[in-house]
Amino acid sequence: MDIREVISKKREDKELTKNEIDYFVREYTNGNIPDYQAAALIMAICIRGMTAEEIKNLTLAMAESGEKLNLSAIGNKVVDKHSTGGVGDKITIVLMPIIAALGIPVAKMSGRGLGFTGGTVDKLESIPGYKTNIPVEEFIENVNNVGISLIGQTANIAPADKKIYALRDAINCTKSIPLIASSIMSKKIALGANKLVLDITVGSGAFMKTKQEATNLAKCMKKLGELAEIETVCVLTNMNEPVGYNIGNTLEIIEAVECLKNNMPDDVREIVYNLGAQMIKLAGRGDDINQNILMIEETLQSGKAYQKFLELVTNQGGDISYLGDTQKLGKAKYVIPVLASEDGIIEHIDAEMCGSISVYVGAGRVKKEDKIDSLAGIVLNKKSGDTVKVGEPLAYVHTNDETKAKGAVENLKNAFKITNKKVKKQNIILGIIK
Amino acid sequence: MDIREVISKKREDKELTKNEIDYFVREYTNGNIPDYQAAALIMAICIRGMTAEEIKNLTLAMAESGEKLNLSAIGNKVVDKHSTGGVGDKITIVLMPIIAALGIPVAKMSGRGLGFTGGTVDKLESIPGYKTNIPVEEFIENVNNVGISLIGQTANIAPADKKIYALRDAINCTKSIPLIASSIMSKKIALGANKLVLDITVGSGAFMKTKQEATNLAKCMKKLGELAEIETVCVLTNMNEPVGYNIGNTLEIIEAVECLKNNMPDDVREIVYNLGAQMIKLAGRGDDINQNILMIEETLQSGKAYQKFLELVTNQGGDISYLGDTQKLGKAKYVIPVLASEDGIIEHIDAEMCGSISVYVGAGRVKKEDKIDSLAGIVLNKKSGDTVKVGEPLAYVHTNDETKAKGAVENLKNAFKITNKKVKKQNIILGIIK
Repeated sequence: MDIREVISKKREDKELTKNEIDYFVREYTNGNIPDYQAAALIMAICIRGMTAEEIKNLTLAMAESGEKLNLSAIGNKVVDKHSTGGVGDKITIVLMPIIAALGIPVAKMSGRGLGFTGGTVDKLESIPGYKTNIPVEEFIENVNNVGISLIGQTANIAPADKKIYALRDAINCTKSIPLIASSIMSKKIALGANKLVLDITVGSGAFMKTKQEATNLAKCMKKLGELAEIETVCVLTNMNEPVGYNIGNTLEIIEAVECLKNNMPDDVREIVYNLGAQMIKLAGRGDDINQNILMIEETLQSGKAYQKFLELVTNQGGDISYLGDTQKLGKAKYVIPVLASEDGIIEHIDAEMCGSISVYVGAGRVKKEDKIDSLAGIVLNKKSGDTVKVGEPLAYVHTNDETKAKGAVENLKNAFKITNKKVKKQNIILGIIK
Repeated sequence: MDIREVISKKREDKELTKNEIDYFVREYTNGNIPDYQAAALIMAICIRGMTAEEIKNLTLAMAESGEKLNLSAIGNKVVDKHSTGGVGDKITIVLMPIIAALGIPVAKMSGRGLGFTGGTVDKLESIPGYKTNIPVEEFIENVNNVGISLIGQTANIAPADKKIYALRDAINCTKSIPLIASSIMSKKIALGANKLVLDITVGSGAFMKTKQEATNLAKCMKKLGELAEIETVCVLTNMNEPVGYNIGNTLEIIEAVECLKNNMPDDVREIVYNLGAQMIKLAGRGDDINQNILMIEETLQSGKAYQKFLELVTNQGGDISYLGDTQKLGKAKYVIPVLASEDGIIEHIDAEMCGSISVYVGAGRVKKEDKIDSLAGIVLNKKSGDTVKVGEPLAYVHTNDETKAKGAVENLKNAFKITNKKVKKQNIILGIIK
């Protein structure tokens, strides 16, 4: 087979066969197809799109490109959760202990942050001692012992996806429904989950800017789920502004601890309750969503969820004294307020800008190799709908890099849109696609 | 500037600015932008197209990327000729000595063959001693001495185009009007011509498959010509079947010698006369096309054109005894007839298939680095409209590679379409765009 012919076909908007897709995935992963030919094909896919059949074949080829986990030792109702990415998104860290506290096994491998979206693994690593890199056997043992394990991708899961994802990032082809759907689902298939709740984020801080795009992505993922016998529910959530108040690794752990102690911002609560209720249903523990939400509330009020979180951290080698007293986690050298220069009501806080600024001050990576500063980030003091007066802090920039502080504060101010009219509260849950 | 932003813009079908195009051309030529990012951008251009303004900026940026020739020592009416490529296309070798014999200076740098289209430089090099690689000063001196010089690209002309062209080839993005037009015109601008006749080939053996596509390309090139103050005339010629009878380097030199001795196949004659008459007009030597054709006929009948060719070859170091007796040039080891298996009339001979088969038997290159076999190729025995009887030769395969002979003969047979109905003669000149 000739890769140039495959490229031409896609350029001319023709459907690729299973053989052609298998060939590309295999030979690119092996290093036999150079990056420049892969880049041309990926760009053509990005512009021309893919048929359902092509997406299926691409997903399966990537899923088969590396190891596949067998989670049967845990049970046949392992429910996974995945988010398409956001700013300040600590939902996994709050939600998973709740689910585990209800006796539903949680075996989750998460990713690191890249660009303006954060990653659960980076956040967990800001807890001293917490090991995200453990062998698969220990991972499964941990789940069997305490009902939960949250780690990074240790096994050689879908290496084709890793290589294609890095290339997509280098050529700005991340925003493509076939490529996003196949990337996520190939990993889920290889990771061995059989139930999945997908948090599909929509808005300025997400890849999908409109509800229509998000719905298309959701339908595409549902179809892939059916095919791989992974029962999938998609929840569309609003990502026009950051989730909760804290953005940055340690800062988000601090907020997550508060959430697990049942001090939850409204938006976090709404997302946690809705995703959680769907997970409980998928696990076969209750068909009534409202009843499921009551179960979640009970784990929070009784302290069982927080207790489960402490068990998780301990079991992963983390020091829970830092969670009992989060001040021990430390603070960035510079904590600078962003002051409002007018009276009014917050109309909007741009999530993508907040994400980019937190990366700029050290909380995230521009390139994969970049080191992150665990203490850096942003703490919002106001959210949309809140009233503000001149001179009041809108947010605080946390950074250890003095040279970046000033620019960050100025830019962050521009992320806030202030109005003198009444602001209608935005919906947090935009739709559920079962 | 960030190349990823430039890629995104074109992916989203937005117009690139002059700054963005200059940046890409400069930094890609310098090696600061990797091939995979350039490949993504080129693919996006190939699919999305370019506005007139973008094409202009791309052309100028590539023209400025290397040396520029100054042909003022030759005169202010240097007429160049360029073909968009074909199979069996020896027009330059026949036409240029005719033009020079009329006293119009000919200073032409040609290219090598790639893929199924041949290259003038390869053909000239099959004349023993002929030097295609001489310094620019000697090139200009040769024109001033005998009125003509045909060589390869010796100067560092449009290196950006060279790099982009090689990449386009590797990712099958050769067929794109903005990229073809900017590639040709950037070189013409850098080569310093001020008058240009473009032979735009149309049909199965050309990049442009339909007259409409060719017309669009012609208009695009005309516009670029105006901008660069190169007076340009486009002649659309039929490339549904090979030009003349011989395909391959030595074989085409043999046919060109015959043509210059006024033994010209009808299609070669029609193209040479029409392109030549336009060149004479551009040179300011006659506005009446029919009169110009008579001038061309006179140079052929009087032997002046052939004489000029001998002067050219001598001046470039070539041994003209091989032209006086072309048998001296030698013959491939295997010359195998392709026999007709039915009676009928030749309806069509597929030019692209003939080109690909001649490459296969050694006459051309698949990759730039490939060596060519000067003696390999195809000699047609019939052309469309000719009657043929079972067992009569349709063509001959010439090759030194015994292992390839059989397959080539079988395939070549499939390039011939034989009918029992009357065949309407196809037009050779499909249009002239002034």
